[in-house]
Amino acid sequence: MYTLYDIYARYIDCLNAQDWSRLGDFVSDDVVHNGRRLRLGGYQDMLVKDFEQIPDLHFEVALVICEGLHLAARLHFDVCPRGEFMGLEVNGRRVSFTENVFYRFADDKIVEVWSVIDKAAIEAQLRSQ
Amino acid sequence: MYTLYDIYARYIDCLNAQDWSRLGDFVSDDVVHNGRRLRLGGYQDMLVKDFEQIPDLHFEVALVICEGLHLAARLHFDVCPRGEFMGLEVNGRRVSFTENVFYRFADDKIVEVWSVIDKAAIEAQLRSQ
Repeated sequence: MYTLYDIYARYIDCLNAQDWSRLGDFVSDDVVHNGRRLRLGGYQDMLVKDFEQIPDLHFEVALVICEGLHLAARLHFDVCPRGEFMGLEVNGRRVSFTENVFYRFADDKIVEVWSVIDKAAIEAQLRSQ
Repeated sequence: MYTLYDIYARYIDCLNAQDWSRLGDFVSDDVVHNGRRLRLGGYQDMLVKDFEQIPDLHFEVALVICEGLHLAARLHFDVCPRGEFMGLEVNGRRVSFTENVFYRFADDKIVEVWSVIDKAAIEAQLRSQ
């Protein structure tokens, strides 16, 4: 029996390894992301696109808390998106930002994600460069 | 002995009532918000300014999870900021958005806050209006 912490750590390892063959071990076929029923295929497509936009993408967990079937994480990114990212012309500049994200699990897999990325922090960095 | 849930519910009630005389019951004198040591006075100033910008501001808790001395909440807002909000010319239009926020407690008070507001969601609504 794995705890949600264990499962989440392995999920993050899977993302950082871009090992999409294992994504279905952690993410439900019916996963919903920010209100959109992406299903596993659409979720994988989203992640593949993220890595295309951000070749050095790396998920770093700064804080994680669990209760029941919910897990909340604060993720940290220090990356160089190569073109436009979140509608901003980043064009290869290095930006640091966070994502505060909630997950709901069922049968040891992620079934729902509510994610917010700190776009305002990215804008502030681009303005000051 | 109150649980963090109880304390948090009373904190949210305090914000919605704009009862700043009670803010110190829930927020530490040394509170840090997104890396800035605002202290209680600066934290109150931030909230007062929020209510000036958004006269119908109301904090609605959509999801809350607790573990140890940490609490994570997904807050929902459905409001009409009267001028500029997060650098966007909202000018009284109604916008719905969420905030994913983590809190660390000590001695039953909030000592650190890590907040991310979904600015991209607000921009999308303004574009479609």
